[in-house]
Amino acid sequence: MIGGGQLARMTHQAGIPLGIRFKLLSGTTKDSAALVAGDTVVGDYRDLDTLRDFARGCDVITFDHEHVPTAHLRALQAEGVAVRPGPHALVYAQDKGAMRARLTELGIPCPRHRIVADPADVTAFAREGAREGDGFPVVLKTVRGGYDGKGVWVVRREEDAAVPFRAGVPVLAEELVDFRRELAANVVRSPSGQAVAYPVVESVQVDGVCDTVIAPAPGLPPAAAVRTQQLALRIASELDVVGHLAVELFEAGGDEGEPRILVNELAMRPHNSGHWTQDGAVTSQFDNHVRAVLDLPLGDPRPRAPWTVMANVLGGDYPDMYPAYLHCMARDPGLKIHMYGKDVKPGRKVGHVNTYGDDLADVRERARHAADYLRGTITE
Amino acid sequence: MIGGGQLARMTHQAGIPLGIRFKLLSGTTKDSAALVAGDTVVGDYRDLDTLRDFARGCDVITFDHEHVPTAHLRALQAEGVAVRPGPHALVYAQDKGAMRARLTELGIPCPRHRIVADPADVTAFAREGAREGDGFPVVLKTVRGGYDGKGVWVVRREEDAAVPFRAGVPVLAEELVDFRRELAANVVRSPSGQAVAYPVVESVQVDGVCDTVIAPAPGLPPAAAVRTQQLALRIASELDVVGHLAVELFEAGGDEGEPRILVNELAMRPHNSGHWTQDGAVTSQFDNHVRAVLDLPLGDPRPRAPWTVMANVLGGDYPDMYPAYLHCMARDPGLKIHMYGKDVKPGRKVGHVNTYGDDLADVRERARHAADYLRGTITE
Repeated sequence: MIGGGQLARMTHQAGIPLGIRFKLLSGTTKDSAALVAGDTVVGDYRDLDTLRDFARGCDVITFDHEHVPTAHLRALQAEGVAVRPGPHALVYAQDKGAMRARLTELGIPCPRHRIVADPADVTAFAREGAREGDGFPVVLKTVRGGYDGKGVWVVRREEDAAVPFRAGVPVLAEELVDFRRELAANVVRSPSGQAVAYPVVESVQVDGVCDTVIAPAPGLPPAAAVRTQQLALRIASELDVVGHLAVELFEAGGDEGEPRILVNELAMRPHNSGHWTQDGAVTSQFDNHVRAVLDLPLGDPRPRAPWTVMANVLGGDYPDMYPAYLHCMARDPGLKIHMYGKDVKPGRKVGHVNTYGDDLADVRERARHAADYLRGTITE
Repeated sequence: MIGGGQLARMTHQAGIPLGIRFKLLSGTTKDSAALVAGDTVVGDYRDLDTLRDFARGCDVITFDHEHVPTAHLRALQAEGVAVRPGPHALVYAQDKGAMRARLTELGIPCPRHRIVADPADVTAFAREGAREGDGFPVVLKTVRGGYDGKGVWVVRREEDAAVPFRAGVPVLAEELVDFRRELAANVVRSPSGQAVAYPVVESVQVDGVCDTVIAPAPGLPPAAAVRTQQLALRIASELDVVGHLAVELFEAGGDEGEPRILVNELAMRPHNSGHWTQDGAVTSQFDNHVRAVLDLPLGDPRPRAPWTVMANVLGGDYPDMYPAYLHCMARDPGLKIHMYGKDVKPGRKVGHVNTYGDDLADVRERARHAADYLRGTITE
């Protein structure tokens, strides 16, 4: 696995019972996954020779993040290395412009969008979509390198549109969708074409960062849930994704029984919106990602409890989370804590908690309380 | 953790979400746990200096097995190392004579027993218990070093009683209990005295090796189950056990509603009879063992499904288990496989499977089928 973050850490954990020999390419020995994996190579994933050396003796290469250059992956593939997902699929998770173009070609509903060249072009894009007023605000995104709200701007007038162009990478303009809420559809697909779909979840974002995930999405009509799962499975198949695919979605307008579902982003790796599966599904997203990239039969994606809630634990002002950690475990013996071994810094994702049960309000309160207490925003 | 076997492997796995930094003392780099742990020291647990070096920088020392010499552990303790469970408790898991003496002193029901000096002494022990005939058969056990049927003999006449004495260690004679079935009570206790009890399970042995575990024990009357949990909690408390304690039991005679429960063996570490908790309980035995030895609040031990069945996967005649592994995963997407990374040898425990659900017959058949198919004793 390339990349030493928490996704690699939890993938290693999930591979242990499967008997998998896990090898890690990590930036440092202190990365989240490097702290727990037995076979770690320290190196730079941007260097082709490093990747080549690392790949030797691996049955298959997979990823903790989308940042490995596509050209390097093509070179590895040409040399016979099994890269899953392959660069022909991964490009749609790396390049938002390519993703929008391809999904639109497939007739999959997306926000109105266009690659823009400069602030004047942004204004033109805004005007084209205007039903009233000037068509602003508009969302601008660098086509590569953004995540967790980075590389994304909401622009309310042309004068504010200069910043995104400064990085020198192409910029995508999108309509600001007036969504009711955000959803995510997680599916896993094997090279042999077997695929499983997890229940569609609601994802609550705060300041552009995933805060809480509720599985399944409350009140989503069963027909809409199935339609959304089918949408994700179709994307996985059309794009030839191997491994875990998270489709982040907007539920917007439409009527209650037939909501309008638009694709926001794609991620081709285990994803924050699937962390609830560790304690809430028969087979976790990490387990199924490992199975998929090794072309093992996939595990049952069904939920184990009526409701599971995941809440991210962000760093707060206190670097020592230990007293809060003790308190949360003592308060709720059913709380499932997942720490990443990272130093606490304000706003940094350092772990998450899962809770499950029959009563959504209770399950949600338990997760929320633990995450807030660990961050230090509440003290009782 | 001292010892590189599968218990250490699964303890490391359980410690990852808790954010634990796990350090392993392993006999070789190829041991089950050494294949997956990030921080492994290779050394001999029988050497005090090795233990001393290993303990440096550890907050607490715990064990994958009971074989570390008590004297070494006392020396480490005297030097300020936290050893959990402590040698004063561990001695009762290491020395069956000391265990029988202590439990009898506490009034805890055990099979009739006595340390014997020679075959004639065995005959005398047999005659004392005879209600009819000569009192044979008698069970002989070396007081130290036995497990999985090793170091245990069922002797039917004095002439067969010579072998157990050859090892030169004390020999314990016990009545052969005419039991209905074997049970196990798993509890976990913290240094601060907090304790949790898992449901009492039925343990099915084949040729002296644990074959199948059914959680909870079918048909055990609730009052008897509670009494058995209390018995195990009392042993943990009286012996000052810290960490996981497995109490292996005989259910013998008595009447259906009030069975006679006798203690067979004690193990002070995660135990085969608790493997079902990985997929069948809110908190696994490995998770709670880690919490206990670090004096963290313990997790909820309650079951997540009406029935969970664990079946050990033993090596069969075919060294390559991979085709069977694929078949089992494809046949049963809900099957939870736990492989230990060991080479397959006939009769060797190389993994286990867990299944859970509402219908015991179905759950049991699924576990049995997978274990038998992996071993190669069935082919369809």
